[in-house]
Amino acid sequence: MIPDLEGTFSTVARNMKKSEIRELLKLTQKPGLISFAGGLPSPDSFPIEELKEICYEILENDGAAALQYSTTEGDTLLREQLIKRYRSYGLDIGLENLVITTASQQGLDLLGKIFIDPGDPIICGLPSYLGGISAFASYGARMIGIPFDEHGMRSDELRQVLSEMKSEGKKPKFIYIIPDFQNPAGITMPEFRRKEIISLAHEFDVLIIEDSPYREIRFEGEHQPMIYGLDGKGQVITLGTFSKTFVPGFRIGWVIAHPDIIDKFVMAKQSADLCTPTFVQKIAARYLEKGLFEKNLKKIIASYREKRDLMLESFRKYMPEGVSWTEPEGGLFLFLTLPPHLDAQKLFLKAVEKNVAFVIGSVFHCNETGKNTMRINFSYVSKEQNVEGVKRLAGVIREALEESA
Amino acid sequence: MIPDLEGTFSTVARNMKKSEIRELLKLTQKPGLISFAGGLPSPDSFPIEELKEICYEILENDGAAALQYSTTEGDTLLREQLIKRYRSYGLDIGLENLVITTASQQGLDLLGKIFIDPGDPIICGLPSYLGGISAFASYGARMIGIPFDEHGMRSDELRQVLSEMKSEGKKPKFIYIIPDFQNPAGITMPEFRRKEIISLAHEFDVLIIEDSPYREIRFEGEHQPMIYGLDGKGQVITLGTFSKTFVPGFRIGWVIAHPDIIDKFVMAKQSADLCTPTFVQKIAARYLEKGLFEKNLKKIIASYREKRDLMLESFRKYMPEGVSWTEPEGGLFLFLTLPPHLDAQKLFLKAVEKNVAFVIGSVFHCNETGKNTMRINFSYVSKEQNVEGVKRLAGVIREALEESA
Repeated sequence: MIPDLEGTFSTVARNMKKSEIRELLKLTQKPGLISFAGGLPSPDSFPIEELKEICYEILENDGAAALQYSTTEGDTLLREQLIKRYRSYGLDIGLENLVITTASQQGLDLLGKIFIDPGDPIICGLPSYLGGISAFASYGARMIGIPFDEHGMRSDELRQVLSEMKSEGKKPKFIYIIPDFQNPAGITMPEFRRKEIISLAHEFDVLIIEDSPYREIRFEGEHQPMIYGLDGKGQVITLGTFSKTFVPGFRIGWVIAHPDIIDKFVMAKQSADLCTPTFVQKIAARYLEKGLFEKNLKKIIASYREKRDLMLESFRKYMPEGVSWTEPEGGLFLFLTLPPHLDAQKLFLKAVEKNVAFVIGSVFHCNETGKNTMRINFSYVSKEQNVEGVKRLAGVIREALEESA
Repeated sequence: MIPDLEGTFSTVARNMKKSEIRELLKLTQKPGLISFAGGLPSPDSFPIEELKEICYEILENDGAAALQYSTTEGDTLLREQLIKRYRSYGLDIGLENLVITTASQQGLDLLGKIFIDPGDPIICGLPSYLGGISAFASYGARMIGIPFDEHGMRSDELRQVLSEMKSEGKKPKFIYIIPDFQNPAGITMPEFRRKEIISLAHEFDVLIIEDSPYREIRFEGEHQPMIYGLDGKGQVITLGTFSKTFVPGFRIGWVIAHPDIIDKFVMAKQSADLCTPTFVQKIAARYLEKGLFEKNLKKIIASYREKRDLMLESFRKYMPEGVSWTEPEGGLFLFLTLPPHLDAQKLFLKAVEKNVAFVIGSVFHCNETGKNTMRINFSYVSKEQNVEGVKRLAGVIREALEESA
């Protein structure tokens, strides 16, 4: 090896650290452990039989095209099907507004590539999705966190930060928001708060990223309007994905934006991977075209609703006093807050000993707060594991409370 | 839209230009045009029937895992199968040396992310693969081109550049090489030249990128040893892909390197797209495991050999005097050189009028030379198109020669 390998890496690569959370998650691979840690959809939700049929159809009728290179923008039928869905949600978009990405994570990465120079400020929530924070950080972004209330990102705090920046002649490259069933907080932003945030974006001429992987997994209540639709000025970039509503193993996502921004995404994607795998795009397009997506989505919603209900019931039954949690109207996660003197990272190791795991909440906080919080996933585990896992977790927390009393 | 969108883009994105070649290639979409321009494998080479069976098997026996998220490193069975192949070529590698990428293009992009800070020098061939040049340029690399002789990159010129850089206390981040059936030149580097280049890399402590998409498509002659195997010091990073030997529509590639470098690739890939689609990885693994890859590869080699022979025969028959071309022992491309006073870009527009297309050679030259060269692909078109296309192209060249006489 060359003697100066470390110095040969780029600034970005020299700053890459083995993810602490990844190292912790390795501890959860032990047999018998019930993991609330991942963000995995339930394998029961995968439409295996339908996919057998569609794979055969695609190879039989369109094999030569399905196995060949395809355009960077993505499969036209797939894009048309997606556009149809979003138009039904009130979005005024056409083919020029949508590019397929290799799942949402690529959308987040390309956002970094297109907008972020080292040191550029980005605004995100406290807490916020780790995959987003990491992608932006990999381009050298300086993350500024805005605290949450029960409606999501606080608009008064956002105004203050934007005003202060403006007074210094600065502004953030964008505001990163997950408006529906936020990961990790499980909070949905009501319409009034969405409008407050957009109106700030308009006032300060700032772009908004609407990361929207869970929107369609709503168990109850009314869909809130999409930020993209409320904007109407081309200032919102929306990210979507099939990873939670269909199958993550296809790695299909998309970006919706003003055509001038889509142009940059296409150019950046061309050098990132030329195109998302043609074969899985064609399968997904046909799956949507056949109306199977809607059918399966209903099944997913019913199943996750049941799992959430069961988990909330167990929380109420087993969690000691002083512990609080969000009650999400949809999505895959809820967020738990311990009394401030407890440290979730210390509890993590004890929990793993007792064969239950979660993600420590601090990793979702760009300012190293949130040490007394945890993210709990309820979509992946079975009902039995769901109840048993909560019992174990409650036991670990109770013990820590007693020790600290 | 925000009024300062352009200024909101990153430096990289502001420098992204609509690719001239992409715009030219759009002209080739007209009906009746015979295109030697792309780098597409022949759809006849796709093992559609075998894939029907494997898709069914995977979904039936391993559906839940095949549709789920998977590790960033890639499917273990697939990696094992690939390692077995490379070990049979004399490479001493294990699982710690190989990461799956979303085709080679992602490998090239991650190379940029891991090694290149804006302004960093990179050495490449004159000519060199456009997708590589573009990916490195997107990170702000300063490309230094080394001329070719009939054995590929000239080692005397390389020594001179490395020595000059060293005298200024500098060195390139890496040397980018496509040793087998080079794209676009169609040249294969013989063992002695490989050894010269490696010995320079050792002397000057520089990394080598061995981009190896075509190696297995050899029509005749002996396989030359892989640069990775000749090195033995962990200074070579090898990129592989299924795009030419199996199907490009799966977007599966891989990077082979020293574990310290693979670590960085894994971290960078995690934020780029988390993992390459699980489903297509499992299909590819099973395809290899069943021995179908070898079988189909033989078919591909036989078919492309026939196409190359036919094209060379037509070249000899129809090309006017003063035109020369490479005679590749494998791969997908040959490279044509016109008399120096002819401009391939001008000829391109005339050729499109006459319903034939190629890629102008200058786009493969990082120093804006090569204006009298063209890249010709022979893998995609049918035999009839192959002959007819050469006739048309020869006619266009003859006309230009007569006009300029």
